[in-house]
Amino acid sequence: MHFFEDFAIGQKFDLGTYLMTTEEILEFAQRFDPQPFHVDALAAADSQFGGLIASGWHTASAFMRLWVDGLLSSSASMGSPGVSDLRWLRPVRPGDELSGWIEVTGTRPSQTKPGRGTVETRGTVFNQNDEIVMTLESAGMFARRASA
Amino acid sequence: MHFFEDFAIGQKFDLGTYLMTTEEILEFAQRFDPQPFHVDALAAADSQFGGLIASGWHTASAFMRLWVDGLLSSSASMGSPGVSDLRWLRPVRPGDELSGWIEVTGTRPSQTKPGRGTVETRGTVFNQNDEIVMTLESAGMFARRASA
Repeated sequence: MHFFEDFAIGQKFDLGTYLMTTEEILEFAQRFDPQPFHVDALAAADSQFGGLIASGWHTASAFMRLWVDGLLSSSASMGSPGVSDLRWLRPVRPGDELSGWIEVTGTRPSQTKPGRGTVETRGTVFNQNDEIVMTLESAGMFARRASA
Repeated sequence: MHFFEDFAIGQKFDLGTYLMTTEEILEFAQRFDPQPFHVDALAAADSQFGGLIASGWHTASAFMRLWVDGLLSSSASMGSPGVSDLRWLRPVRPGDELSGWIEVTGTRPSQTKPGRGTVETRGTVFNQNDEIVMTLESAGMFARRASA
């Protein structure tokens, strides 16, 4: 179980893999991001992307799943105030297998709430060709061990 | 149809509304963000949130849908390189009705690709009590009218 005190700058957590299927790419985009290059194979083939690509929010959500399974589910996570930088660097296409890691870039105890602290992280997401498809810098709140 | 040239700093686009149902909050979180305060009503009631809250990625995705329906589907959108700031300011709870707007904060023609340009925006998302639940600053690429 990872509490706030268990995180330190430089720690790196390798996460699992997530397969982006055509079916899930279409389903996600039809619900949340129905732009032609996400939902219409013919229009996508004719776009600058040359074929269907996943919504960037889908890629972010898939990485969140890896993060929860690989780290947060065994932590005292108390949620996140936000993401300071989220970059979609390469298209994610049907059949891509995502993997990645989370690095700890900062830790600070809360000044106002003694039972918690903030952990700053940088996430990097790769496809099966070891190309970086997404990066994000974010903050998460974690309970302190003493508060448990 | 909105091309790059049709955007100007200060423009504001009001978007529609999105109802965050219990069912969709659970479904999204079970797939992408299965932390206890998103998927387990009892654990959530016992957390600092006092009840189930939506994954922040769900809120972002729901806002994306409003943005597509309210603006991007009638634009020459070419996708986005990323989000420079994304803040989850208040919990989103089952039954909340989200609304919001997009403001144009910058426009720049591409230096390398004459057929497109970048539009910088700030999005603000409210709940039904006019409380801001999320903000995001992002960039989108749009085709120029001359390239159509």
